[in-house]
Amino acid sequence: MVDLTELMENEVFMAFASYTTIILSKMMFMSTATAFFRLTRKVFANPEDCASFGKGENAKKYLRTDDRVERVRRAHLNDLENIVPFLGIGLLYSLSGPDLSTALLHFRLFVGARIYHTIAYLTPLPQPNRALAFFIGYGVTFSMAYRLLKSRLYL
Amino acid sequence: MVDLTELMENEVFMAFASYTTIILSKMMFMSTATAFFRLTRKVFANPEDCASFGKGENAKKYLRTDDRVERVRRAHLNDLENIVPFLGIGLLYSLSGPDLSTALLHFRLFVGARIYHTIAYLTPLPQPNRALAFFIGYGVTFSMAYRLLKSRLYL
Amino acid sequence: MVDLTELMENEVFMAFASYTTIILSKMMFMSTATAFFRLTRKVFANPEDCASFGKGENAKKYLRTDDRVERVRRAHLNDLENIVPFLGIGLLYSLSGPDLSTALLHFRLFVGARIYHTIAYLTPLPQPNRALAFFIGYGVTFSMAYRLLKSRLYL
Repeated sequence: MVDLTELMENEVFMAFASYTTIILSKMMFMSTATAFFRLTRKVFANPEDCASFGKGENAKKYLRTDDRVERVRRAHLNDLENIVPFLGIGLLYSLSGPDLSTALLHFRLFVGARIYHTIAYLTPLPQPNRALAFFIGYGVTFSMAYRLLKSRLYL
Repeated sequence: MVDLTELMENEVFMAFASYTTIILSKMMFMSTATAFFRLTRKVFANPEDCASFGKGENAKKYLRTDDRVERVRRAHLNDLENIVPFLGIGLLYSLSGPDLSTALLHFRLFVGARIYHTIAYLTPLPQPNRALAFFIGYGVTFSMAYRLLKSRLYL
Repeated sequence: MVDLTELMENEVFMAFASYTTIILSKMMFMSTATAFFRLTRKVFANPEDCASFGKGENAKKYLRTDDRVERVRRAHLNDLENIVPFLGIGLLYSLSGPDLSTALLHFRLFVGARIYHTIAYLTPLPQPNRALAFFIGYGVTFSMAYRLLKSRLYL
């Protein structure tokens, strides 16, 4: 068996692994939040999900949408749209040999901005809190993309 | 050119590559399922998609939603929300040097649970089939995240 | 600190990194497009987003959906559904030691097809432009998955 510990002894890569795991775990928490609001507010998307609350027509009334549930779902989708680019670009950026301090700055800003985005979306905080959180994460990802392409472009 | 076969000779990494490829291919199959139901049920989201079924007002009646199509789309989105964390966390976990047997257990449970989730969603099977499938996949990903952070945390 | 430049000196991997960064940046651009149409058409999903356009009932009228915005959102979701498999399968494929010319053909076709898909979706071009773009990208990803599983299957 080949020794891979080499990759995991690289500090930038370990930092990327830690921050990515944290932000992906946060994203997964959104599923639990959706399930929580669906169950406490009895708001379902599938007939089989509300079978235990009643039969036939009585159950159908739970097939509806709810502001709170839709808000969590939008926050979740926004996470997906932004964390997927971070995942891909961040991985490749980590492997391109950046400075440890520069890389840490990128990872910390991104993770902080996305946690702030979730808080701003779910509370909700007045704008431009959420917009600001979004653009910080967005800018960090573009900054990594720019550094990556500048140093390693191969088309 | 550098020899990368080293990474691909690592058994855990090869197993991760195989299971990931299978589950991502399964996820891509959901696009085909959506297209299939859209075409057979004549349910479209874009005016240009139903142009071949009629002109003007006659075509507009196909711009609608359908339970079956929406069900496949929800299953697809749920796949995305759960397979993306598996992809990121699983990759980093595979590189952190886990036991082959532990890693295989994680990968097999996840892939099995997600295939079961799709079957439970599309059939649909009564609850708690789908909820169970969801939580197995969810738990597996968190277990990998926990092991990764425990052994390699770098903030 | 360990030297990772080895991985980034591999030409296939550098090409994968470049094309992935480009296509993920293109996907991120969809967020900007959504924000642009939301602001210029005053179409919002959250009450706090239209607070600056009026108070109370006056603001509520901006909580609506709009064809143009929904079109961009569908294009964005379709990107996510297709770029995530490319990201995972493409990364593993790049590490499996393919021919440089074969790999480049896959990456270029995929990136070209997805850019064409976005143009076809947002213009919109008549079908089968968008369907064709979709299936090229889809086929490229399956081709990489097939090559990967054929050479490295480990279950």
